[in-house]
Amino acid sequence: MTTAEKHMAQDLHHQMMLLGRSARGAAEVLTRVDTASKNAALQGAADAMRDSLATILAANAEDMDQARRRNLSGALLDRLALDESRVEATAQGVESIADLPDPVGGVIAEWERPNGLRIQRVRVPLGVIGIIYESRPNVTADAGALCLKSGNAVILRGGSEAARSNAAIHACLVEGLAAAGLPETAIQRVPTQDRAAVGMLLRDMTEFVDVIVPRGGKGLIARVQEDARVPVMGHLEGICHTYVHASADLEMARKIVVNAKLRRTGICGATEALLVDRAATDSHLATLIGDLIDAGCEVRGDLTAQQADARVKPAVETDWGKEYLDAIIAVRVVEDLEDAMDHIRRHGSGHTEAIVAEDAEAAERFLKELDSAILLHNASTQYADGGEFGMGAEIGIATGRIHARGPVGAEQLTSYKYIVRGSGQIRP
Amino acid sequence: MTTAEKHMAQDLHHQMMLLGRSARGAAEVLTRVDTASKNAALQGAADAMRDSLATILAANAEDMDQARRRNLSGALLDRLALDESRVEATAQGVESIADLPDPVGGVIAEWERPNGLRIQRVRVPLGVIGIIYESRPNVTADAGALCLKSGNAVILRGGSEAARSNAAIHACLVEGLAAAGLPETAIQRVPTQDRAAVGMLLRDMTEFVDVIVPRGGKGLIARVQEDARVPVMGHLEGICHTYVHASADLEMARKIVVNAKLRRTGICGATEALLVDRAATDSHLATLIGDLIDAGCEVRGDLTAQQADARVKPAVETDWGKEYLDAIIAVRVVEDLEDAMDHIRRHGSGHTEAIVAEDAEAAERFLKELDSAILLHNASTQYADGGEFGMGAEIGIATGRIHARGPVGAEQLTSYKYIVRGSGQIRP
Repeated sequence: MTTAEKHMAQDLHHQMMLLGRSARGAAEVLTRVDTASKNAALQGAADAMRDSLATILAANAEDMDQARRRNLSGALLDRLALDESRVEATAQGVESIADLPDPVGGVIAEWERPNGLRIQRVRVPLGVIGIIYESRPNVTADAGALCLKSGNAVILRGGSEAARSNAAIHACLVEGLAAAGLPETAIQRVPTQDRAAVGMLLRDMTEFVDVIVPRGGKGLIARVQEDARVPVMGHLEGICHTYVHASADLEMARKIVVNAKLRRTGICGATEALLVDRAATDSHLATLIGDLIDAGCEVRGDLTAQQADARVKPAVETDWGKEYLDAIIAVRVVEDLEDAMDHIRRHGSGHTEAIVAEDAEAAERFLKELDSAILLHNASTQYADGGEFGMGAEIGIATGRIHARGPVGAEQLTSYKYIVRGSGQIRP
Repeated sequence: MTTAEKHMAQDLHHQMMLLGRSARGAAEVLTRVDTASKNAALQGAADAMRDSLATILAANAEDMDQARRRNLSGALLDRLALDESRVEATAQGVESIADLPDPVGGVIAEWERPNGLRIQRVRVPLGVIGIIYESRPNVTADAGALCLKSGNAVILRGGSEAARSNAAIHACLVEGLAAAGLPETAIQRVPTQDRAAVGMLLRDMTEFVDVIVPRGGKGLIARVQEDARVPVMGHLEGICHTYVHASADLEMARKIVVNAKLRRTGICGATEALLVDRAATDSHLATLIGDLIDAGCEVRGDLTAQQADARVKPAVETDWGKEYLDAIIAVRVVEDLEDAMDHIRRHGSGHTEAIVAEDAEAAERFLKELDSAILLHNASTQYADGGEFGMGAEIGIATGRIHARGPVGAEQLTSYKYIVRGSGQIRP
């Protein structure tokens, strides 16, 4: 390291520590802020986004230019792109978060002990949340708004490909905070794309950061798992499976498989692999594959799938457990329910799996014995979504096992404490 | 490293990986085991402890001999010591865990969406839990039993000072598992005191361990935070405060202060510091200090406390925020509620704090604005205990902010998943 580089690293460290300290300060203020002020800030942010439409789109156009020069894939470009309707949808998303009930202060449970002690379990904010995410700029608004609603201060670190779009949207959130008289440091953005800043967020700021929420692919998650010295609420990739049991109603299976794969290919609840019972080879397999290919999906299959339709490409080992986020699907014929569950346990990411079956017993075993965050019977995996669950917005689908699993909304961004009211009790 | 040392390290690594792999296998079996079998294993373990009383006490006598030779403190010796009544209490503790409701499979919430999807949030085990703890041998039984009850496999790593006692108690747990036909690897113990094994548990077994629960002092927690590559549910030390507000009823305050400090000094809910309002200097301070000293407690106080009673020793800066776990207390006079809360925020460990006050408004502010896991009004901090909360046994009081806070019982050792039942729904 040259002396100049050392100075830059020290400056960055100093800058990040300031960011952390002011986030902690904002979090302390937020514990005492009422619901109306938080909602006013959110409404102000939504208004600011509409007012700043031209600025946001201009920033996004620069990000898109750069992304095209870097030859990003079509799926990534689609995730990055903003237009008037997407900005409007983002603003509406922030408004819908304002409309959600405030989770903070809610009494989760209360009971009285024989000795007269009255115990309450009360929701409190988590504190300071660090969110590390990739591409999609609306995450800046969704995550910032959800953290504020749940009384948390947040430090956002988006991907470099969306840096300008994120900055423009972040400015609107800060405008909302300022207008409502809340600390502007309640929603901060790491102001540099220097990757060293991520390391500092993960390692050096344990005093200031209570939990890290990574949203992204395997590379990001692996880095976070390796480097983090604070708790992590992981949002691993969605390697979702749809399993068509021999008892499945063919028409229902056709609708569900096409929807699960193709409704939107870039979301984490999109099905990436189709499993079909061997007993349904003649009755279901060719029809399901034909539907997918006719709808523009590339199918990579095992030998039986290739025999069912000449257009099927051979699947290789890495196709099992791959998150395409694109119009590509892996198709495998399994012997039975047990074999299907075994495949899912081996290749899934614990996100979302669906079974299509008329056999209720098989369905119940699938729902009970598999251990992904979301298990569906006779429904599309694309329902893996906080909004569709009726939880309002979400910052993602947690695939870890502690704190929260599945859609992470405002309520999942809280912790709790116990309040115990007595009248002089001492322990015998 | 010599070649011999390298071989030993490789052997240990191999041994730990085997431990992890068999824990994962046991965890998978446990997801399908019914409540009756788990309870039978627990009853069998309790019976085995009674049958093995002589063996357990002989093992404990060896641990105690060694501890005395190492000049362990009286408080530590007391935590380590077993006798017939403590073993009986431990066996009864295991039986009481058998009597608890089984948290696994319980439906936490269920609702129906307008599109007809029926959603359930269902409790599932966490998976494999690693528990790292110090001294007290009954933790082996409590932690093993609670993990089994909640359907988790567990890897126990107790302190070297209690190694023989822990091994003897662990053998009883395994006897119970075997008698009930459950995998003996559901409750495993790291079979070596080699500290490298802890590093492997924290770092190298991410595939096999879902969460680490450390129970111990600052040193252990710091090491775990630095080294862990899996989620941690931290049980930090209990630097508990009792704050006597100017409005406190003197007789109530006297009872609570003595109980909070002295009922048992070695538990994490014992009060370590007493804060008294300056306005109560004449009315309360000398009486409270006198009670403590008369009961055999060493008092280390600030200048005002020293003036109140000549027997008070001067407190030094490190007395604030110190976990004595002994008959010693730090006493400080504070200006008011705000000053008391400020002191607690600065020096507390987020465990348990109590206010004694007749002024309801002051009490409510203390309960609302402080953010420890447990906040009490007019009751002893020694109530910080899962049993006293009516939750049955606990493996400790979690002081982290994610997943569980406060007493960690069987329910807190579970995660959840979503089960969604449809009739062919596809997402528009």
